[in-house]
Amino acid sequence: DDAPQALVEGAYDYARKHKDHEIILVGIETDIRRILGRFDHKPKNISIEHASEVIGMGEKMDALKEKPNDSMNVCSKLVKVGKADAMVLCGNTGCSVAAAQLHLRRIPGVKRAGILTPLPNTNGLTWVCDCGANAVGKPEHLAQFAQMSSIFVKHYADNPAPRTGVLSIGSEDSKGDELTKETLALLKNIDLNLVGNIEGNHIFDDSVDVVVCDGFTGNVVLKATEGVAKLISGILKEELHGSPLTLLGGLFAKKAFKRLRERTHWSLVGGCLLLGVDGITIIGHGRSDRVAVASAMKQAARCIETNIMDHLRKEFAGLS
Amino acid sequence: DDAPQALVEGAYDYARKHKDHEIILVGIETDIRRILGRFDHKPKNISIEHASEVIGMGEKMDALKEKPNDSMNVCSKLVKVGKADAMVLCGNTGCSVAAAQLHLRRIPGVKRAGILTPLPNTNGLTWVCDCGANAVGKPEHLAQFAQMSSIFVKHYADNPAPRTGVLSIGSEDSKGDELTKETLALLKNIDLNLVGNIEGNHIFDDSVDVVVCDGFTGNVVLKATEGVAKLISGILKEELHGSPLTLLGGLFAKKAFKRLRERTHWSLVGGCLLLGVDGITIIGHGRSDRVAVASAMKQAARCIETNIMDHLRKEFAGLS
Repeated sequence: DDAPQALVEGAYDYARKHKDHEIILVGIETDIRRILGRFDHKPKNISIEHASEVIGMGEKMDALKEKPNDSMNVCSKLVKVGKADAMVLCGNTGCSVAAAQLHLRRIPGVKRAGILTPLPNTNGLTWVCDCGANAVGKPEHLAQFAQMSSIFVKHYADNPAPRTGVLSIGSEDSKGDELTKETLALLKNIDLNLVGNIEGNHIFDDSVDVVVCDGFTGNVVLKATEGVAKLISGILKEELHGSPLTLLGGLFAKKAFKRLRERTHWSLVGGCLLLGVDGITIIGHGRSDRVAVASAMKQAARCIETNIMDHLRKEFAGLS
Repeated sequence: DDAPQALVEGAYDYARKHKDHEIILVGIETDIRRILGRFDHKPKNISIEHASEVIGMGEKMDALKEKPNDSMNVCSKLVKVGKADAMVLCGNTGCSVAAAQLHLRRIPGVKRAGILTPLPNTNGLTWVCDCGANAVGKPEHLAQFAQMSSIFVKHYADNPAPRTGVLSIGSEDSKGDELTKETLALLKNIDLNLVGNIEGNHIFDDSVDVVVCDGFTGNVVLKATEGVAKLISGILKEELHGSPLTLLGGLFAKKAFKRLRERTHWSLVGGCLLLGVDGITIIGHGRSDRVAVASAMKQAARCIETNIMDHLRKEFAGLS
């Protein structure tokens, strides 16, 4: 929503902190130069790749073909030809998902790409897939999401045996709809650390490391989670302003609120991996601010450092 | 989970506060008497109806026929014959939903009953239906949930034109799956204050008063909401204990935290209406504590006072 300013500023912050990383900003060159020009310091590790067209937030998938020089197209091609090791896209989610798959294709054997989102739990992060790359899901797609997410978390989060669950409406195997029941049946025949069915609250209580669901449910949960967190912080702020004593208390407790934000706010995670695409693709939040952009870039760098794509290609090929 | 103690204690609290309401406790008489015996005061407005059998939380629907003297069966029959004006069930949700429909049937013309749950928003409550009475949904069921919820909110919450939305993964009409698209198309031909598609976060930001979705999605959202709220309050408590200063701040701000809890905690709402059944049925939380039980009873009383069943029967018949 705040492009290109938030993106350029976030990339600038990232570039200054990670001098050995090369950052390519893809977009309308004059706009990028104007924003970069406001900073006194000029990081040497930022370069610009001009993309003359722009696909807006409300546009349909067709726009990708109608505007071949949009930044999502140009960015994907840079990854395709190896000029970039990873990309962060912060625009129209539908077009981002489509552009990545159009240019980078999927990992051999993968039937659908899924958005893998880290959500906070009491002890770290729970990874949920799919959070909206697809509006509907099939059992074989969810089973692949479980396999890929498990490989991802193993390497990215250094977790040798990620606990994996199917998001349902009861923990017994018989609970849920056809999709969850068939997914669970498929997963029982796969080498996974399978917990079984889990319920919505278990995403947040460290019962599991990986959760699979259809893209509709995942997207609703993701948005609802943001909504609840925003509601709670809004009410808390309002109530702290209710009296001088509570306001003083709020000031004294400032550090605790800051830590809470650090442990739960989406901008500190920044983005979601588009899992299954044959190239590191981080889908940033449409409302990404400067902090979120830098966080999403950190996620991309971690994917590069942990050789995520090699692991996914190799281990997924071995499974299917 | 804490039955029968939490139920008897909650009913006791309620009875003392509402001396003109008659409360019938349905369950194993000796157990109820033992718990009531611990109180010095004996409210005159509490009576006991013995139910000799008990259906556990893990049991299947068949149990309803196998145990005709379970409290859910006995309670439903009391409402059926008019000995009670409303009932609150805090056990096995699947069996509660089935028992109510088995004995009370549905309002003429209603195809499915749905669980209508109030969730907090920035300015009051958003009512979400279905939160898990059915594992799957059909467009005509969701359309009826929208109609019934709108009638309910009009009278219960004194809101002349409840804003009604379809839970989806984007606000444009084209976003979502077949179910949401067909539901939206049906709702456009119905006399409703229709907002259109809404996303998960809009449940909590006062964009709508009524949200319809399939029971799977609604249940996942409900549980996820509880999970996020619990996570945030747990982290906040932990971080407030992080230093003497934050701890002091927490003490000073105590009232703000109390108010936050009052505005967001499920136990202050207590239960969900089983919408569409021909008799007031409140489904309490399986983890209901004493406060939640009393709150659920308050909800039941409000339904009686606002003549919800008459309005639903009359206005729904007029619509279909």
